[in-house]
Amino acid sequence: MTPPVPALESLRSAFRGRLLTDAADTAAFLTDWRGLWTGQALAVAQPDRAEDVAAVVRWCHEHRVPIVPQGGNTGLSGGSVPDRSGRALLLSLSRLNRVRGLDLANATIEVEAGCTLAQVQEAARAAGRLFPLSLAAEGSCTIGGNLATNAGGVQVLRYGNARELCLGLEVVTAQGERWRGLRGLRKDNTGYDLRDLYIGSEGTLGVITAAVLKLFPLPAGQAVALVAVPDPAVALQLLQRAQDRLAARLTAFELMSHTCLGLVLRHVPTARLPLQAPSPWYVLLEVSDGESESSARAGLEALLEAAMEADLVQDAALSSSLAQFEALWGLREHISESQGAEGKTIKHDLSLPLSRVPDFIAHADAAMATHFPQVRLVVFGHLGDGNLHYNVSPAPGPRTPDQVAAFLALEGPVNQLVHDAVIAHGGSISAEHGLGVLRRDEAARYRDPVEQRLMAAIKVALDPLNLMNPGKLLP
Amino acid sequence: MTPPVPALESLRSAFRGRLLTDAADTAAFLTDWRGLWTGQALAVAQPDRAEDVAAVVRWCHEHRVPIVPQGGNTGLSGGSVPDRSGRALLLSLSRLNRVRGLDLANATIEVEAGCTLAQVQEAARAAGRLFPLSLAAEGSCTIGGNLATNAGGVQVLRYGNARELCLGLEVVTAQGERWRGLRGLRKDNTGYDLRDLYIGSEGTLGVITAAVLKLFPLPAGQAVALVAVPDPAVALQLLQRAQDRLAARLTAFELMSHTCLGLVLRHVPTARLPLQAPSPWYVLLEVSDGESESSARAGLEALLEAAMEADLVQDAALSSSLAQFEALWGLREHISESQGAEGKTIKHDLSLPLSRVPDFIAHADAAMATHFPQVRLVVFGHLGDGNLHYNVSPAPGPRTPDQVAAFLALEGPVNQLVHDAVIAHGGSISAEHGLGVLRRDEAARYRDPVEQRLMAAIKVALDPLNLMNPGKLLP
Repeated sequence: MTPPVPALESLRSAFRGRLLTDAADTAAFLTDWRGLWTGQALAVAQPDRAEDVAAVVRWCHEHRVPIVPQGGNTGLSGGSVPDRSGRALLLSLSRLNRVRGLDLANATIEVEAGCTLAQVQEAARAAGRLFPLSLAAEGSCTIGGNLATNAGGVQVLRYGNARELCLGLEVVTAQGERWRGLRGLRKDNTGYDLRDLYIGSEGTLGVITAAVLKLFPLPAGQAVALVAVPDPAVALQLLQRAQDRLAARLTAFELMSHTCLGLVLRHVPTARLPLQAPSPWYVLLEVSDGESESSARAGLEALLEAAMEADLVQDAALSSSLAQFEALWGLREHISESQGAEGKTIKHDLSLPLSRVPDFIAHADAAMATHFPQVRLVVFGHLGDGNLHYNVSPAPGPRTPDQVAAFLALEGPVNQLVHDAVIAHGGSISAEHGLGVLRRDEAARYRDPVEQRLMAAIKVALDPLNLMNPGKLLP
Repeated sequence: MTPPVPALESLRSAFRGRLLTDAADTAAFLTDWRGLWTGQALAVAQPDRAEDVAAVVRWCHEHRVPIVPQGGNTGLSGGSVPDRSGRALLLSLSRLNRVRGLDLANATIEVEAGCTLAQVQEAARAAGRLFPLSLAAEGSCTIGGNLATNAGGVQVLRYGNARELCLGLEVVTAQGERWRGLRGLRKDNTGYDLRDLYIGSEGTLGVITAAVLKLFPLPAGQAVALVAVPDPAVALQLLQRAQDRLAARLTAFELMSHTCLGLVLRHVPTARLPLQAPSPWYVLLEVSDGESESSARAGLEALLEAAMEADLVQDAALSSSLAQFEALWGLREHISESQGAEGKTIKHDLSLPLSRVPDFIAHADAAMATHFPQVRLVVFGHLGDGNLHYNVSPAPGPRTPDQVAAFLALEGPVNQLVHDAVIAHGGSISAEHGLGVLRRDEAARYRDPVEQRLMAAIKVALDPLNLMNPGKLLP
């Protein structure tokens, strides 16, 4: 459905920025980076400033045009791609990419939504400070998208999700008004928490145009260890000991099965297992220290010695140089791409109460082996946050197209088995990836009806015309 | 206005718990602990369980009776006291006081809303864990009230406000439905953040009946120091150094003017100034350590040596025993009561970007000296959070009743001067005390109209009959 030309002409003159309508220009905005979802749009608007975002939204409100906000388009749940109707305007925030200011004494930075995460990290580092949000897509994802989806990553254990790193927001409402909530305050109890309502709402309540974020001291030194553990229950005991001894100096605690490391060792030429023998499970733990690298290493050594005495740990490798630090982290960071090298995968982004992770894994592994004996489980994640990427790969070896199709056809039943188990163990079916369209209906099915009504009431209250990213997050 | 008796009888039979109607029984619920606000109520309901809270709320919804939820009734803004109409039901959560369970491996505790803060702290400590929320009223305030007002306190610098300590909530909605959001998850991106919407909403959107809270390792050792600094700007430089070196081991950073300590030294017989000479300002800083007390002390000593070398600090006293630790903390903790001993006070609970605290104090002090030369400023607070208690006392010495009245008549103009200055410096007029009725209208006056409309839309969406704590938080 193409709208009358005068309407689009009136949009073009309504804001400063770019309006793309040629298919060649708009194509990249209409498909997610993994190529799982492709939609159509009326046009792609790229406003230059927050007030131009507001102007675009006002135009859409006036003409009843749905809006799909988009940052780096790196999401994993299809939240930033329009549907196929072609009715929506795609609103790209990529030209709002200024670092507006950095307040060292307040340990805050004010940035526009279209800044990439790497750009924010670099601006902080250039001032001798740490912005700790860190995830695989950091070179191209935007901070606005990170906030709209409440992104997680590897440092959540110490610093929290995107939500915990944000002090203030600037938002364009569904009516095209600008809410200037750019406070740089650690404490502020003057009304409802609008900030946290917009964070994680995936563009369905308004458009985040800027944020005030927390900065932290750069650690003076870090150390990392790869530790062999027999099972997830022992990994959990090690986590508790590590937190007791190291408290907030423990900045990452990652769990990986041997299958994960096997994939990395097979596909990454430089990868080596720095332990005496393979183990069914591994933990990668990182310590950051305010004093020095040797102090970080000493803290990690003392922990590992105590854990060995307590028979929790048999074998461990500890970084003693930057190259070793990076090599050890590389074993964790290359899991996804190594898994991808052996065919398409069925991914799950789960969280559980930490205490229930071992039971969940035992239960889900057994159920998967019974019902889907032909697949491989590739299980890893941020154990410190109870966040597992419980991924499923086809059996190794060459596959015919029919075999590939048969594997992909398992997605629905596999999801149901895994997600039913997650819910039965008190967990969540989306820990850090959000709902988008991928998990929207499943989340609604598992959701408490009271919670569903509350969410629907909020959506109607703030976006009564259902123009903000319709069809995402809520059915 | 007294309702027809059958109606109250139908309420009595609708829930398990107590229904108090005699004035002798209800009086304590109808006045705040400072005696600043007194109201009337239809009755006081004290349900026994969450489902009985829901039954009470459903009855109120059916009969269009406003509800004033109340925890320990220790708030400072009049949020838990009904108005004088006598139309509202006072809903006391005090009998919902069970610790429902503690999950050590998940580092969480599930508690009912009526548990006192001290009860939660003790349950955590008995399991070898820390629940870090800590404030003066902890013996009688309830965790439900702490969450409804997003309480702060002295450990926010390290552990966050009540908001940051809560993973899940159980809430009775304005319609009397129960939302079971008692998740014990560190990551959960499956919809709008209802938890943070209810936290800090002061009972105006629903009634919190239970919560899942985070626990932390108990520090192995702590140390505290009182440090003389010439002015707040130097205090801020010291804070930055302390955070760079100690990171999350820095668990408190409190600022006090000499006037504050003078009051404590005058009114607390055991109080001593452990420094060589008085100073215009003091900082109290606390270090907590996962290894030992000597490690905490060593970290603090190294910081203070570096700060002395850099000429930031001239004189400091460091605790070397538990008795000294408590004596130093006592200097901070006795400020409020010592101030109270010299007459009624005009209190402000402000927060500012940390970078603007020195300018704010200089500006506000000068303006106060010009316009209100007859008063004393008693300025202290949680500098690490940018949170100042910028309090005002009458001049020392005996006062006639007329002089007392004249001082109290300054409250409006003094508030206006101080709060205008706060807003001009990018701050908030309620950092940790909430709005209640005390700051409701002032907050609305300073609030961005877009923000006001968003808040009003949420209130109407979740409480369309305006029965939940009407007249609190929003005008």
